[in-house]
Amino acid sequence: MTNDRFQRGLAKLEEIDGAAGQRVIDSLKDIAPDLARYTIEFPFGDVYSRPGLDLKFREIATVAALTALGNAAPQLKVHIHGALNVGCTRQEVVEIMIQMAVYAGFPAALNGVFAAKEVFQERDKDGLS
Amino acid sequence: MTNDRFQRGLAKLEEIDGAAGQRVIDSLKDIAPDLARYTIEFPFGDVYSRPGLDLKFREIATVAALTALGNAAPQLKVHIHGALNVGCTRQEVVEIMIQMAVYAGFPAALNGVFAAKEVFQERDKDGLS
Amino acid sequence: MTNDRFQRGLAKLEEIDGAAGQRVIDSLKDIAPDLARYTIEFPFGDVYSRPGLDLKFREIATVAALTALGNAAPQLKVHIHGALNVGCTRQEVVEIMIQMAVYAGFPAALNGVFAAKEVFQERDKDGLS
Amino acid sequence: MTNDRFQRGLAKLEEIDGAAGQRVIDSLKDIAPDLARYTIEFPFGDVYSRPGLDLKFREIATVAALTALGNAAPQLKVHIHGALNVGCTRQEVVEIMIQMAVYAGFPAALNGVFAAKEVFQERDKDGLS
Amino acid sequence: MTNDRFQRGLAKLEEIDGAAGQRVIDSLKDIAPDLARYTIEFPFGDVYSRPGLDLKFREIATVAALTALGNAAPQLKVHIHGALNVGCTRQEVVEIMIQMAVYAGFPAALNGVFAAKEVFQERDKDGLS
Amino acid sequence: MTNDRFQRGLAKLEEIDGAAGQRVIDSLKDIAPDLARYTIEFPFGDVYSRPGLDLKFREIATVAALTALGNAAPQLKVHIHGALNVGCTRQEVVEIMIQMAVYAGFPAALNGVFAAKEVFQERDKDGLS
Repeated sequence: MTNDRFQRGLAKLEEIDGAAGQRVIDSLKDIAPDLARYTIEFPFGDVYSRPGLDLKFREIATVAALTALGNAAPQLKVHIHGALNVGCTRQEVVEIMIQMAVYAGFPAALNGVFAAKEVFQERDKDGLS
Repeated sequence: MTNDRFQRGLAKLEEIDGAAGQRVIDSLKDIAPDLARYTIEFPFGDVYSRPGLDLKFREIATVAALTALGNAAPQLKVHIHGALNVGCTRQEVVEIMIQMAVYAGFPAALNGVFAAKEVFQERDKDGLS
Repeated sequence: MTNDRFQRGLAKLEEIDGAAGQRVIDSLKDIAPDLARYTIEFPFGDVYSRPGLDLKFREIATVAALTALGNAAPQLKVHIHGALNVGCTRQEVVEIMIQMAVYAGFPAALNGVFAAKEVFQERDKDGLS
Repeated sequence: MTNDRFQRGLAKLEEIDGAAGQRVIDSLKDIAPDLARYTIEFPFGDVYSRPGLDLKFREIATVAALTALGNAAPQLKVHIHGALNVGCTRQEVVEIMIQMAVYAGFPAALNGVFAAKEVFQERDKDGLS
Repeated sequence: MTNDRFQRGLAKLEEIDGAAGQRVIDSLKDIAPDLARYTIEFPFGDVYSRPGLDLKFREIATVAALTALGNAAPQLKVHIHGALNVGCTRQEVVEIMIQMAVYAGFPAALNGVFAAKEVFQERDKDGLS
Repeated sequence: MTNDRFQRGLAKLEEIDGAAGQRVIDSLKDIAPDLARYTIEFPFGDVYSRPGLDLKFREIATVAALTALGNAAPQLKVHIHGALNVGCTRQEVVEIMIQMAVYAGFPAALNGVFAAKEVFQERDKDGLS
């Protein structure tokens, strides 16, 4: 886990959500360490590190997609944290959720807001915006 | 179709994609005119007209969600136009598609780029950026 | 293809959509005749033949589900025909589509109405209600 | 929250599931009160209040769609309650679930029945049919 | 529950996951015993009992599909057990999960691996490979 | 496009479907050449090139997943070709489709078989098994 893509990805993921990278590596190290490496390398080393779309815009896209898909609750929470860490306001996150009612239905929007509520409470405890 | 929400929605949809509002109304007028009205009122009169999230950010969220869901090709094309009309660059649209490979898989990303390619060709013919 | 479940299923499918059963059998006979048999036996011989839910209610459930899932356009059209054949009005079919905007988003509802529009035009040609 | 659509929606939602409307409003009041308002206004004030499809049929459509989609467990439980409150029998609810095996697969049907089982147990405690 | 398809299905399901058949029957016996019967008859009595595709290949297909769909966690765990019981190695199961990152996105792959981790721990306790 | 992962991926994709790699590169070269590169590098250079799961098993997993997801018709056809090219029989491909009726519903299975039918006809013309 020492190649350039991995190092660049780990740095990028730390910028998005300080602890998430290490958590993924730890949770997979006994069962699928290569998937941990790929998860750092391709999404974060290749994609999120690209120029052409601001990191804040990238997080808006991800929060929207995961809310609409509705089947990846843990990853949605990581990226709500991420969106807030790279410059989104809480109001912007909530607006994305509300908008997903239009494209994926009201249950997806409501479940997205409930995920945001949990994240905001975690951040209140930690004194984060 | 004269209430405030409808008028505000129609104006907002014209800002996003000049022709799309009238096309939806026309295509539904014989079969489901109330769905045409709702489609203007709730998504565009209520949601897209809200403060709290820039229109460009809203289009980024929509393009991401529709690419990830992968089952609404006509609406995805409308919103690729919309994203470009409200200030996204073509590169930004393509970056959103690439990013969806991470969250919805490579087929979703590829089919999103192919939709963007069609939209870009339509806009080339019309001299649009 | 002579067992009871198959015969009961074929009769039930003919009640729902006169031609659809034979079309499925024909389209699969060279490649997957057993899937044709299963498609008659389990859905129509077992499920639709059950007491406990009126056939009209069963078609309402199916049209709703296929509109919401949004990835089975040919089967949705068969069951819009089916709903109308077993007693739904065209207005009821359109109402189901509109309602799916709430649970699966506006694109699903719009694409459902466009499918209904095609079916209604086919039935107009054939003088069907 | 005093306009006609909201008041009509709240009354309709109370008819479907007495407590659900207030629960939605309470759960969102700190984070997204406008989404609570929209959830009352559009689905219940606009759509469920329409003529053209009996309320019982509307609940059949919703239970079918949410079972097929399989990613909105809390809302599925609300609408199993709703279906029973507006005149469906428990047997009819179970029949809808069984039928979804055909359109969304056996796991969706099984998970739908398990949700119904929880709802039936809640209603047994409350002496509801 | 004495017909040939049921008996053949129950035997096949016992071959795949010794306890799962009886668990399904027990969990549904008060609410939807016919769905229990169908779940044994069609998937296992009809489909898994067919020649033309090895049982190991069938389990690979099922684990892949359930990981990609991402909305049937309990059934995914049954079939991870099943895959291991009919000859897949743990490594092969993990490889299927990793591959699903390509077709359904990284969250689906990660959640698949986490389900596999739970199953492997259950099997460690029981001394199973 | 000269790094090791790309070269290894291109060779692997040629083994799976001789022409598909170049077609992807060509179709994306004007709009998203980096997505073409990623599509070769990660899925084929990283994942399909891994030991631990036979290439035939990998194609079984992919055909199953794309049939179940039901929203990636072009990619499904590529991988039906791929499955046949790496050692699956036509009967095995059809069996995978039939099995998907259990997990994703009959429409997904039927649409999968119809895709297989098209692929088999293309191969008949080319004299391929």
